[in-house]
Amino acid sequence: MRPSERSPDTLRAVTLETGVNRYAEGSCLVSFGHTKVLVTASLEEGVPGFLRGRGEGWVTAEYGMLPRATHTRGRREAAQGKQSGRTQEIQRLIGRSLRAVVDLKALGERQISIDCDVIQADGGTRTASITGAWVALRQATRYMLEEGLITKDPILDQVAAVSCGVFSGTPVLDLDYEEDSTAEADSNFVLTGKGDIVEIQATGEKRGFSEAEFEALFSLARKGIRELCELQRAAAR
Amino acid sequence: MRPSERSPDTLRAVTLETGVNRYAEGSCLVSFGHTKVLVTASLEEGVPGFLRGRGEGWVTAEYGMLPRATHTRGRREAAQGKQSGRTQEIQRLIGRSLRAVVDLKALGERQISIDCDVIQADGGTRTASITGAWVALRQATRYMLEEGLITKDPILDQVAAVSCGVFSGTPVLDLDYEEDSTAEADSNFVLTGKGDIVEIQATGEKRGFSEAEFEALFSLARKGIRELCELQRAAAR
Amino acid sequence: MRPSERSPDTLRAVTLETGVNRYAEGSCLVSFGHTKVLVTASLEEGVPGFLRGRGEGWVTAEYGMLPRATHTRGRREAAQGKQSGRTQEIQRLIGRSLRAVVDLKALGERQISIDCDVIQADGGTRTASITGAWVALRQATRYMLEEGLITKDPILDQVAAVSCGVFSGTPVLDLDYEEDSTAEADSNFVLTGKGDIVEIQATGEKRGFSEAEFEALFSLARKGIRELCELQRAAAR
Amino acid sequence: MRPSERSPDTLRAVTLETGVNRYAEGSCLVSFGHTKVLVTASLEEGVPGFLRGRGEGWVTAEYGMLPRATHTRGRREAAQGKQSGRTQEIQRLIGRSLRAVVDLKALGERQISIDCDVIQADGGTRTASITGAWVALRQATRYMLEEGLITKDPILDQVAAVSCGVFSGTPVLDLDYEEDSTAEADSNFVLTGKGDIVEIQATGEKRGFSEAEFEALFSLARKGIRELCELQRAAAR
Amino acid sequence: MRPSERSPDTLRAVTLETGVNRYAEGSCLVSFGHTKVLVTASLEEGVPGFLRGRGEGWVTAEYGMLPRATHTRGRREAAQGKQSGRTQEIQRLIGRSLRAVVDLKALGERQISIDCDVIQADGGTRTASITGAWVALRQATRYMLEEGLITKDPILDQVAAVSCGVFSGTPVLDLDYEEDSTAEADSNFVLTGKGDIVEIQATGEKRGFSEAEFEALFSLARKGIRELCELQRAAAR
Amino acid sequence: MRPSERSPDTLRAVTLETGVNRYAEGSCLVSFGHTKVLVTASLEEGVPGFLRGRGEGWVTAEYGMLPRATHTRGRREAAQGKQSGRTQEIQRLIGRSLRAVVDLKALGERQISIDCDVIQADGGTRTASITGAWVALRQATRYMLEEGLITKDPILDQVAAVSCGVFSGTPVLDLDYEEDSTAEADSNFVLTGKGDIVEIQATGEKRGFSEAEFEALFSLARKGIRELCELQRAAAR
Repeated sequence: MRPSERSPDTLRAVTLETGVNRYAEGSCLVSFGHTKVLVTASLEEGVPGFLRGRGEGWVTAEYGMLPRATHTRGRREAAQGKQSGRTQEIQRLIGRSLRAVVDLKALGERQISIDCDVIQADGGTRTASITGAWVALRQATRYMLEEGLITKDPILDQVAAVSCGVFSGTPVLDLDYEEDSTAEADSNFVLTGKGDIVEIQATGEKRGFSEAEFEALFSLARKGIRELCELQRAAAR
Repeated sequence: MRPSERSPDTLRAVTLETGVNRYAEGSCLVSFGHTKVLVTASLEEGVPGFLRGRGEGWVTAEYGMLPRATHTRGRREAAQGKQSGRTQEIQRLIGRSLRAVVDLKALGERQISIDCDVIQADGGTRTASITGAWVALRQATRYMLEEGLITKDPILDQVAAVSCGVFSGTPVLDLDYEEDSTAEADSNFVLTGKGDIVEIQATGEKRGFSEAEFEALFSLARKGIRELCELQRAAAR
Repeated sequence: MRPSERSPDTLRAVTLETGVNRYAEGSCLVSFGHTKVLVTASLEEGVPGFLRGRGEGWVTAEYGMLPRATHTRGRREAAQGKQSGRTQEIQRLIGRSLRAVVDLKALGERQISIDCDVIQADGGTRTASITGAWVALRQATRYMLEEGLITKDPILDQVAAVSCGVFSGTPVLDLDYEEDSTAEADSNFVLTGKGDIVEIQATGEKRGFSEAEFEALFSLARKGIRELCELQRAAAR
Repeated sequence: MRPSERSPDTLRAVTLETGVNRYAEGSCLVSFGHTKVLVTASLEEGVPGFLRGRGEGWVTAEYGMLPRATHTRGRREAAQGKQSGRTQEIQRLIGRSLRAVVDLKALGERQISIDCDVIQADGGTRTASITGAWVALRQATRYMLEEGLITKDPILDQVAAVSCGVFSGTPVLDLDYEEDSTAEADSNFVLTGKGDIVEIQATGEKRGFSEAEFEALFSLARKGIRELCELQRAAAR
Repeated sequence: MRPSERSPDTLRAVTLETGVNRYAEGSCLVSFGHTKVLVTASLEEGVPGFLRGRGEGWVTAEYGMLPRATHTRGRREAAQGKQSGRTQEIQRLIGRSLRAVVDLKALGERQISIDCDVIQADGGTRTASITGAWVALRQATRYMLEEGLITKDPILDQVAAVSCGVFSGTPVLDLDYEEDSTAEADSNFVLTGKGDIVEIQATGEKRGFSEAEFEALFSLARKGIRELCELQRAAAR
Repeated sequence: MRPSERSPDTLRAVTLETGVNRYAEGSCLVSFGHTKVLVTASLEEGVPGFLRGRGEGWVTAEYGMLPRATHTRGRREAAQGKQSGRTQEIQRLIGRSLRAVVDLKALGERQISIDCDVIQADGGTRTASITGAWVALRQATRYMLEEGLITKDPILDQVAAVSCGVFSGTPVLDLDYEEDSTAEADSNFVLTGKGDIVEIQATGEKRGFSEAEFEALFSLARKGIRELCELQRAAAR
């Protein structure tokens, strides 16, 4: 039995609220249960140095957690003077996931910066971030089309993410913090709308786990991401 | 005429929403018009080194701005590896303002950390932060009383803050960003519920300004802070 | 009774010695009693990025304290790898205060960097810095006029600063360290030669304080700054 | 055809040379073709703060690349003042992978620090690091047993890693740099001696990729890791 | 002919003024011509971690240069966030030089921190620092004896330093900046009162130089340091 | 008697192995007994800012030590976020030593970056680095000549280095760690092939030392460096 009383293949209540920032070209407040992430997509002219002059754009992401997003207050990264390894790992994942479904040439020499700030954390902040980020990105590219900055839609497909894990011996979908902290295996799946793999990260937390377990997690992820993609389409309409 | 069409002595719409974070001992989402700051108050056992063994507590504050809180995206301080001078100045002001109305001995050897994170900025983020922080602090000390951690209320009075400035030659209350960026003089007043001065910061932005102008600003601030104190009492009830 | 036996409205012995650095375009060793600050004004071609191409100049300031300027040795900021919030707050104040009396267009695309290094500290280092900085700045602009770099004097007025506070219940002028560390209220006033307000910072250290107290402090400051302006004129002659 | 003329399921020449550092409790110079990583295992008394007093040990890893390990010289991280996100991601992966096969209680309150320094890089530095690290760790725990510091072998199983990718449409084993930089999909598998999954990281570099492709990669990885485990056993004998 | 018209074996005018800081246990303003360094010696209870519990003391030094000590303004190290390699090299040299003439056991578990801050630089700042530091240190240990903190004088001998170089083919004593910047060879000698070698650093700036040249430099240094030691004795009386 | 049983004027076994890195324009693995340093020379187009436009090149060096190069593991400088003073001192010495024998104009506007990474340390890492660096540099300039990038050999002479010290009262050549840690005097000599002085650093570790001792050290160094120069010529052939 899951602590939340969800059945193994059930997502938490997911909401994707758009238009939550009056300045950003795209924005989305995404909730996976008690996990809440505020995502903005900011359009900036120009690209990083390594891309200059190639006529291509870039999509990048930054991730942060408010100090009291968690049960006990964490140290503010700006005060510590550096981003943790975990933060960097997550923001690299978000950026990579989005770029897999964007035609960078269609952006022109512009960058879209995605900021994912975790307001409240209850597990799954990186998968919520990716899922919400696609909605914010969708809005930003729509803005670009409407303003006539570009003529071709750079978004090639949807992308969404969910975590799965083996909790008390059972493969379950969309771990919350309580499950995540004791799970035997933990995984994050990032899939496109068509079902292609963008990223898989699977970790045996206390022990290795079997290929059969891995396949059960993958199958749960497919189901969850199908549902998330539907919610994205509704939100981005 | 103010860009917002407010009369010179009118605050923006101010809201103070409590209970916005399920983990923090106190929390408040404060809005001064389009300026929105999420404030949490976190109770921590122990005090900083310089106070250890004195039987006294401490109240401190940290301040941050989400990168796209502003019209154009700013750099994330955690990514830059340091907090700007402006950030440090503001968080020192917030901490000082709150400590002026707290009986630190009554806290015991505990620290309350106030986090003020600006979700959206349209001028007056430091005054909104102080005003909302008092509400979050109020909730945290009530929690301490209810849990039996302390027996005496450490809050001695209210404290609230507002900015005033000389805009197009006229003293006005509660500057928004458009006013702030062209004001001839800019000031922040922090007053207690009783009307005592906790902090005054007044700056001639382009020129010095006269004592008569200063007095007009002070008088507007008194009016605004009286109204803010009423809203605080309602929110903290 | 003040520890220094000064009457409430008496400044410490103030001296402003110019020409103390053989390389700087302007320099001043300012003493407010035992507080000694070495100020240099350095002329540099070019302006910071945000001003480039506008045909305007800039005046900026940096502040530092030698490790043993104080009763007990403090840590060297260069060794710690960052400037404290206090240091940044003070150097921002000095720069702002000077810019209020400078016609930046008249400087051309040049920067004057003011360095205020505290050799010995006994309270009032920021007000001594501002008062001495004006003298060093005055020398640097005179150098520019004499060298024919500019034809119009960019200095619009004098600017000087003094602290006042409520010590043992009495408003007093120009706090020394012993007074400052126990004062109930502490304030810094920065006024122009004409008496206009450039900056006011007033803080209730242990309690809020009343408007009547504030007015007494302001009136002491006016008197002190009138005397400082006279000394500046004598030094800059 | 692979640039190296290897068949799709062939590892590069792999060597694991032990005893390459006269001070370290364990050491291994691992080569996967032209990729060479010097690994040391250092035994230290005590554990990090978060584990103190629990009677458990810890295994952690650090990773670095010599500036000219690569085709063009990269900047030295120590000179830049921070480790890149990539470096932190890799060192976290190495530590996690090793801990999955170590009985931390059996270590007592001791830490084994694994240092993986890349002498020459031609793709697959993280998988070579993990594979060599197990050998160095094996030596360090043997040292502990021989010295009588512990009585029970803390190593529960082997762990080794290899990369696989889709190169020019074909799934291939153990990518070198030339393949890696143009692969359509890239993955790292970390498996135990028994074949359990410790970590899977799979990324679609330019596009999503299919589940069938993923399965082909997984199957190549199984084959490669079986061979690596044999080499580990030979080296650690 | 030297630019300063000094003969090859003549020091600049050297002054050693004591008692220049009212808080420090020892202080000395040392001038070698236009080079001026403010040195303080601060007594602190306790020693660095690596010495704790051994009943021994420590002498350490920090060095800094005010931004406009030089012809053109340099960047403030505290603002840059780190000390340059040159700064660290110099402060390590100063500390080492002083410790060579101090009986650390006689200090007890106390540290004397020497701060050398260059007010104005015209070559030879490190040698002036060492020469002045001995005087400040001498005062601090005398203070300790007078206060009864120690009973045995920890100063074993004097130590002083001077630079020599080959300028336009001629070996000369005590280089000023103009000579230093074009010298073919540059050297710093640190000798004890008895004439023993504490430190020699000799560098061929543009070319190697001969042993005969080195011996000429050494001999000049002996002469200069004999004179400096006399001035130290007079100052420390 | 030396712990290694060497006679006072005997070098450790020295080897200089070239071609140890397949990407670098020059490379050398240098061993002085158990001290092993991997040196690479990397050719880069362009020069640092302060040299731009002068038609001259630059040679610079960086130095690092692997964490377990030493008896007990040291902290990784990249993880600490800064290079120690010792590291900076050594890398400045290496760069200076090499530049003394290079005709920078003959390089054109190109930089050669020398990386010296200590794989295993047993005393004398800086002298081994310099000695090996000359060999790597020699290879890099030969590459430039062969590729037709330059037409004139920029190497003016050889340069090599060795340490000497007073150990148990006896002057000895090429200190190993055991000797170095207890030596009464320690010195590093950097001489050209012709025998000119490039750099001398001599330090009395516990006491000053006499000129006679210094001369004995110098004479040992001459002998050692003559032998090192022969080995360099053999290696660079």
